[in-house]
Amino acid sequence: MVECVPNFSEGRDAQKVSRIVSAIAATPETLVLHQTSDADHNRSVITFAGPPEAVFQSALAAAAAARDLIDLRAQRGAHPRLGALDVLPFVPLDGHTLEDCVQLAHEAGERIWRELRVPVYFYEAAARRPDRRKLEDVRRGEFEALSRESLVNEAKQPDIGGPGLHPTAGAVIVGARKFLIAFNINLKSNDIRVAREIARRIRTSSGGFPAVKALGLLLESRNMAQVSMNLTDFEQTGLDVVFGEVERLAREQGVEIAESELIGLMPRQALEQAAARMLKIDNFQSRRIVENAVEVMRR
Amino acid sequence: MVECVPNFSEGRDAQKVSRIVSAIAATPETLVLHQTSDADHNRSVITFAGPPEAVFQSALAAAAAARDLIDLRAQRGAHPRLGALDVLPFVPLDGHTLEDCVQLAHEAGERIWRELRVPVYFYEAAARRPDRRKLEDVRRGEFEALSRESLVNEAKQPDIGGPGLHPTAGAVIVGARKFLIAFNINLKSNDIRVAREIARRIRTSSGGFPAVKALGLLLESRNMAQVSMNLTDFEQTGLDVVFGEVERLAREQGVEIAESELIGLMPRQALEQAAARMLKIDNFQSRRIVENAVEVMRR
Repeated sequence: MVECVPNFSEGRDAQKVSRIVSAIAATPETLVLHQTSDADHNRSVITFAGPPEAVFQSALAAAAAARDLIDLRAQRGAHPRLGALDVLPFVPLDGHTLEDCVQLAHEAGERIWRELRVPVYFYEAAARRPDRRKLEDVRRGEFEALSRESLVNEAKQPDIGGPGLHPTAGAVIVGARKFLIAFNINLKSNDIRVAREIARRIRTSSGGFPAVKALGLLLESRNMAQVSMNLTDFEQTGLDVVFGEVERLAREQGVEIAESELIGLMPRQALEQAAARMLKIDNFQSRRIVENAVEVMRR
Repeated sequence: MVECVPNFSEGRDAQKVSRIVSAIAATPETLVLHQTSDADHNRSVITFAGPPEAVFQSALAAAAAARDLIDLRAQRGAHPRLGALDVLPFVPLDGHTLEDCVQLAHEAGERIWRELRVPVYFYEAAARRPDRRKLEDVRRGEFEALSRESLVNEAKQPDIGGPGLHPTAGAVIVGARKFLIAFNINLKSNDIRVAREIARRIRTSSGGFPAVKALGLLLESRNMAQVSMNLTDFEQTGLDVVFGEVERLAREQGVEIAESELIGLMPRQALEQAAARMLKIDNFQSRRIVENAVEVMRR
């Protein structure tokens, strides 16, 4: 099994999102596992899995549907974006390696440019240039600035296609990576400065925890500040660690956590590890869960 | 599948425990899922599962091995006990009901007396008298007092067998119940009064949480007070709830939690629910775990 977690720059028009999901699900062996849309972010994340060939076909169908349905010239939201299909990561599940997913990413990128005329940047494990490993570096400037810069600045050219971006669909950032947990914590405050300061304190890039990306946002529809996080390697930094630290830093500012939310899916091990640590279970093993123990014994 | 979780009054002699496990595992279709021994409690808990017929055979073999290996006249430990094989509960897993397990319990009880001459009391869903539904009521007085009382007091007679108990193996308390989570929290204190007071505050019988049994103990080998709990219906009161309350009550006495420990196994849902609540994930569903989502889609 391979997983694919495309992020689309449309989180408000349910009909458009539904058409994209249908395009993905049209490949019989693909399992659509989850979908979520956020109106403030104006973004949808669809998670699907299956054998590599099925996932590949569904990914191409997703790129085609996004190109036809989403016009970035009119699109606005709290979340930065470069493309209609903004990010297309392939993730190894059981029986596949990160290298398998790099190959899938490169083949998908070639086909997206050749068949849809949407340029492609490669990121993370699929990056072809060292300065493109990080998604945020590739996306810096977003659709508006990169539409111009990619025409005039060689360093901003897509890896495949161009020069310049697609006039309405921008570019697709295709990659391969480990399982990423998208986890947001909403604060009982509408002060975006509190969320931004907490995000700065916890993220890797400013000296916080390893394998953590974080942004402070304002959820306008709910008038609530949010610490929006990606945990890119939960074995290095788990859910309980960021939750505990966000709670502590918020309290220093006199702010409580309202609730948190999971975007998309997470691996079983991430929740089990977090729970065991929060409950201080010092002898925890995955096999202490009866369903897991039965699975292991039956193999 | 049916689960069986016998509790044996031997937690110090590894060789004896190993012989009991071998007796259980001798039935080919039985899966031994877990075993744990505690020297302070002088008690071992072995968890196994399988089709009802296999679990039934293994349960009889366990009773026979315990009768032959454990002599209660010499046995001492922190945990109360009435029998060598002290408690023999049958638990429904997928595809079986509590009623199926009541029938298994009654048949096992008949065979244990007929073949091993060890008397049997029935408890919980398998109880034949209303005052024997609760394990602690059946076990009150333990081996020493009940050996005498069961000879002279009709109300203390075993449900099957007797009069009196087996001279070295006592009696087996056989039952059927829902999944029980045995969860202990160790305190950074050797003051048993703190653990006892916390246990009193949280247990159902003195007005605490529903479906919680709790005792305060002293772990002599570690010089540590322990709140030892059974959660008899985690959907009513979960791990996070008792953990949070024990932490709060301990802090009122200036005591911190050292760590907690799980005895035996717990159902997947119990850990998922606890984790989601502790992380305040307000949109949590079991299907948000990728392995669960794949299982559901494949059905």
